[in-house]
Amino acid sequence: MPDYLSLARRVLQAQPFSMLLGAEVTGFEPGSAELRIPISDDLKQQHGFVHGGVISYAADNALTFAGGSVLGEKVVTSEYKINYLRPATGTHLIARASVVHAGRTQAVCRCDVFAVTDEGERLCAAAQGTIRRVD
Amino acid sequence: MPDYLSLARRVLQAQPFSMLLGAEVTGFEPGSAELRIPISDDLKQQHGFVHGGVISYAADNALTFAGGSVLGEKVVTSEYKINYLRPATGTHLIARASVVHAGRTQAVCRCDVFAVTDEGERLCAAAQGTIRRVD
Amino acid sequence: MPDYLSLARRVLQAQPFSMLLGAEVTGFEPGSAELRIPISDDLKQQHGFVHGGVISYAADNALTFAGGSVLGEKVVTSEYKINYLRPATGTHLIARASVVHAGRTQAVCRCDVFAVTDEGERLCAAAQGTIRRVD
Amino acid sequence: MPDYLSLARRVLQAQPFSMLLGAEVTGFEPGSAELRIPISDDLKQQHGFVHGGVISYAADNALTFAGGSVLGEKVVTSEYKINYLRPATGTHLIARASVVHAGRTQAVCRCDVFAVTDEGERLCAAAQGTIRRVD
Repeated sequence: MPDYLSLARRVLQAQPFSMLLGAEVTGFEPGSAELRIPISDDLKQQHGFVHGGVISYAADNALTFAGGSVLGEKVVTSEYKINYLRPATGTHLIARASVVHAGRTQAVCRCDVFAVTDEGERLCAAAQGTIRRVD
Repeated sequence: MPDYLSLARRVLQAQPFSMLLGAEVTGFEPGSAELRIPISDDLKQQHGFVHGGVISYAADNALTFAGGSVLGEKVVTSEYKINYLRPATGTHLIARASVVHAGRTQAVCRCDVFAVTDEGERLCAAAQGTIRRVD
Repeated sequence: MPDYLSLARRVLQAQPFSMLLGAEVTGFEPGSAELRIPISDDLKQQHGFVHGGVISYAADNALTFAGGSVLGEKVVTSEYKINYLRPATGTHLIARASVVHAGRTQAVCRCDVFAVTDEGERLCAAAQGTIRRVD
Repeated sequence: MPDYLSLARRVLQAQPFSMLLGAEVTGFEPGSAELRIPISDDLKQQHGFVHGGVISYAADNALTFAGGSVLGEKVVTSEYKINYLRPATGTHLIARASVVHAGRTQAVCRCDVFAVTDEGERLCAAAQGTIRRVD
């Protein structure tokens, strides 16, 4: 059995923007993926919360990895939507995505993004989107 | 008449994440907003194109500023969806957002994100979302 | 304890369009709602499958009822997105929606729409949206 | 030059659900499509406004026709999102959709839905989605 998680980590590490944000893949198996991002001051907006753009990045990328877990490495996010639910604050973000339905060339996935504090995880965004294989 | 553009710039400059990405507000008037982001290597994914997370950031933030242009400074993006249309490459991104409909507490806005090269602008993403006033 | 299901049924029965489609509420409790629609020829498109508009109706209305289950009767769908996953065929549709997060004035909900045949349920669409209280 | 509008009308007339709703194609050319639906009591919700499901149907179908205007007759809506902007009331709905970007196999389109009264048109919903060619 291939080491899927190591493969996913290599893909993420080849993304300069993901490295700029400090993201890492913490889960990856057929049908799901998990990313983590430590919350640093650089990732915040003017009120001290994590910037929506970071949360979107986390959701988008977790969706892509979840789709890639069933469609293969060469995938892109075609589209997604995200609802922000609460301001995100804490030590890090966790984005958990899973495949809702996969065809031959595309997969529809959902993602929940959590903000983690000492007291536990709080859901701060919910996303849904389409991942497409590119050849 | 207040200097709306200067106000919008101050808001953006108070967002550490926007400064990390090098974003600037290049247009802001009642009903619309424009952001620009210079494309540096740090903002790319593994194939040399701008990372989707950057494009999402640009769309999300331009939507928020467009909404804020009619609802006031205290606004957040409630939700949005984005369709990626083409890989983005070039010297910078331009995100142009405008208000489709505004009520008292929320506004629905659309945004087009362009990648700019020496040859001109190419549409690379289209977004639509809801901006909400927070009190 | 109030009879939530009967209340939800009365609301649905007051919607002429829901009656035109033959929809009924088959589940309603705080945090979730279920609608059913018998598949008649009138609800189909040109290839004999259920028309996407019917599936959208089912998702939209189930989202509204789920939101209403926590926000009260006076609610509207602000926005939603839907991904169609498979052609829908069979005896009836079931739309199951649940609340992902509820604030004081709005709730974000997800909905899965299934097509039911003699062989069981098949997921044919996935939706996510915002329900808002109106006063 | 083929009579695109007649072709589009034949496609719509082959959809029993579109006939149930009284929809007609009133515009169809490469890159755009327009549908009209007369507002009858059957299409309303409990407060006398057009049911959201009808507005969604109009947006979804206009998006599909716009996509089909550049991709050919064999197309389906993969996904879309819609924001409801105002309650819809009047004599009929008009849904106008246009192509934002088209590739070889899919097109991203936007749609505005208007409610028409004696006093003119009022925008009541805005949608954006992906149309995909099926073979």
